[in-house]
Parts: sequence; structure tokens; C-alpha cells
Amino acid sequence: MEFSQSTLLSLEELYRRNLMNTLTGYKNGNLIGTQDENGNTNLAVFNSVFHIGAKPPHIGFVLRPTTVARHTYDNIRAVGYYTINHIHTEMTAAAHQTSAKYPKEESEFEKCGFTPHFSTNFGFAPYVKESRIKIGLKFAEEIYIKTNDVWIIVGEVQEIIIDENFIRKDGFIDLQKAGTAVVSGLDAYYEATEIARYAFARPNQEVSSV
Amino acid sequence: MEFSQSTLLSLEELYRRNLMNTLTGYKNGNLIGTQDENGNTNLAVFNSVFHIGAKPPHIGFVLRPTTVARHTYDNIRAVGYYTINHIHTEMTAAAHQTSAKYPKEESEFEKCGFTPHFSTNFGFAPYVKESRIKIGLKFAEEIYIKTNDVWIIVGEVQEIIIDENFIRKDGFIDLQKAGTAVVSGLDAYYEATEIARYAFARPNQEVSSV
Repeated sequence: MEFSQSTLLSLEELYRRNLMNTLTGYKNGNLIGTQDENGNTNLAVFNSVFHIGAKPPHIGFVLRPTTVARHTYDNIRAVGYYTINHIHTEMTAAAHQTSAKYPKEESEFEKCGFTPHFSTNFGFAPYVKESRIKIGLKFAEEIYIKTNDVWIIVGEVQEIIIDENFIRKDGFIDLQKAGTAVVSGLDAYYEATEIARYAFARPNQEVSSV
Repeated sequence: MEFSQSTLLSLEELYRRNLMNTLTGYKNGNLIGTQDENGNTNLAVFNSVFHIGAKPPHIGFVLRPTTVARHTYDNIRAVGYYTINHIHTEMTAAAHQTSAKYPKEESEFEKCGFTPHFSTNFGFAPYVKESRIKIGLKFAEEIYIKTNDVWIIVGEVQEIIIDENFIRKDGFIDLQKAGTAVVSGLDAYYEATEIARYAFARPNQEVSSV
């Protein structure tokens, strides 16, 4: 089956949205925690977090200016800080529920059964206590993509909270051990099983597992 | 265990790179196919492809200016077209091998055991015949992120080649049925098993599966 560009553009909107959101393959699922200037907390699920670079440690995510994401965006711009928290396999239903359109004065932490956690050194935004991998970020840059009316938000990592048992000797985080969930599209959650981890590849040398 | 920003920056380089590359959670793995003006084909594995928007259908990926990625970048800029091809669970070793530094005159298609495929309507860049989900793109925009010396390459979807059995009625692509692999970090590959797909979430309404 082949979709040409004109076919794609003529598809019914929900069909096209589902197709395009699953087309790029599996994604991460993360909860982004923020608060406004008055300390009202907010929590929202995002599936578009991506690694930009290790030095400085920068992470990006795609933000659509919908009503739900707007609270996250407003808080990030007002306060300048936010947290990214892993969604684990046992919390997928509650994480998905944060995508409901709660009014601004209601916190998704309370409504969806998550606990805000503030660390000693990063009091600017709430972490999700139940999450086993937590990242504290400072807003660094926003990039507007006009053709799709979306923003790429870039943040600098200020703090990482993680159980050291999840980190292998070379810094690799064992996401399967941490129970981190995989996401596809806007609403599907998966668990992952390792096939292999491969050694650095060199020309004319057989691929080997590490 | 808590990493502060200063701890992060003082980590040994490979450790920090592994940590930062696994920190954001699971990723997709895709093979990007290109050719130069003389028709010399190139294939490279990327784990940073992300959905930008459905209308127009735009996909982005992060490109690091390393030697390996440089061939992909040069070809995209010279020809203006490229393909994104899913990596399936049975082809992870061969896909990983495309990350080896082959000289420009050698094609990773041949060296790693993949077959170039050109469609009738998209002859500008080679697809991976063995891939069950193939996307043909036209270069749209590049965004430079100075702090990390990386580019975000944005492409417009021109064509999608996919077996219709993988697409559910609402446009959702069943990646598990397609056997698409999940990636973590720079070198780990996983297979995914569906936990649930949830209905559109509404405030004060129990989450339900679809």
C-alpha cells in the first residue's frame, strides 16, 4: 500500500493524525511537571522528548499549542523550570489520564493520583514521586516551527534523580530494569524486552553483543 | 542517587554520553537512506526521528556532525530527498552495523546486507527493501542548535509504503504486528509488547482501553 502526499492530505483528520503519530516508530512517554508563580502544580503526558546533546546536557520536546499543553508552556515560561519523569509500565493508565482537559486550578497530580516531590536543590518545579527516573530542567531555548505551529522547547539538565541499581558501569541506564514504558501514537503503551546491546561497530567486522 | 549539573559535567565522557542517551527513555530506530548526485547510495542508523506535525506531514531528526552522519547530511543537502525506514526485530544487528565508519565510496546497503529499492514515484533516494514501513521525504528545513553543535533536519513526507494489514481502521499503525524494534541509547535494541491502548481521556472519567 502506498500513500502519496496528496492521498495523505486528503485523509480524514483523525486517521491522518493517528497514522502520522505512529509512522515514526516507538516513542518514550514522559510526564512533565510544572508549577505557576503561585505554586499551583501541573502535570501532563508528552511523547516527544528527545536527546539533543550531552555537553551541555540538553533535552528537547515538541509542544503543540493545545489547551492541555498550554498550561505546561505557560508555567515553563513564567517560572523557567520543569521536570521530566519516566512513565513506568504500572502507571500508564494514570499517566494517560493527565491528558484530559482539567481546568487550570485543578492539579493533575491530585486528580490522577501522583505525588508532587520537591528536591532539596531543585525547588522550582514538582517531580513525580512515583517515577523512578526524574530529571530537573531549566528552560534554555524555544524554537518555533511555523509550518506546523509547534514549538521545540529545549531545556538544560540541572539534576537527575535515579536509583543507582538502574545504571550499568558505563553509564547506560537499564530502562527494562527500571520498568519504563514505551509509547506509540497518542494512546498506546508497551513494555520492552531487550534483544541485544551491540559493541561499537567497525567496517568489515562482525557485529557482536556486549 | 542524585546527579547535580556539576557532577554531570565532571563525568567521564563515555559514561556521560551513555547516561544522557538513555535518560530520555525509549526511542525509535530508523535507517536513513540517501544517495549522492552520482547515485552512490548511503545508509545510516538514527535513533532521533520525531513527529513534528500531520498537516503538512513533517518529520524531524537530530543529526550530529560526525563523520558517519556527515555522508547522510551531504547527500540530503545535495539531492534534497531521503528515506526513513523502520528497523525490525530481526534486522537489529545489520542495522547497527551501518553505524561503522565506511568510506564514502562504499555503500552500507551492500556492506550490511540491505537492498536499495526505488519506487515509481520517488526515485530520489533509496528505500530499504527489507523494511516493512518506508517513508520518502523531501528536505524542508534545517535548524542549527549552536550550544550542542547539532542540526534538526525537518522533512516533508512525500510517500509512505506500508502493508495495509499493519494499519488499524482509525489510521493507527500496529508497530508490534509490523515487528518494529525499540531502541535505547546508542546500541541497545528491544522488542515491544502492548500493555493497552486507551480511549481519549476526559476529566473525572475512568481511563478505559479501546
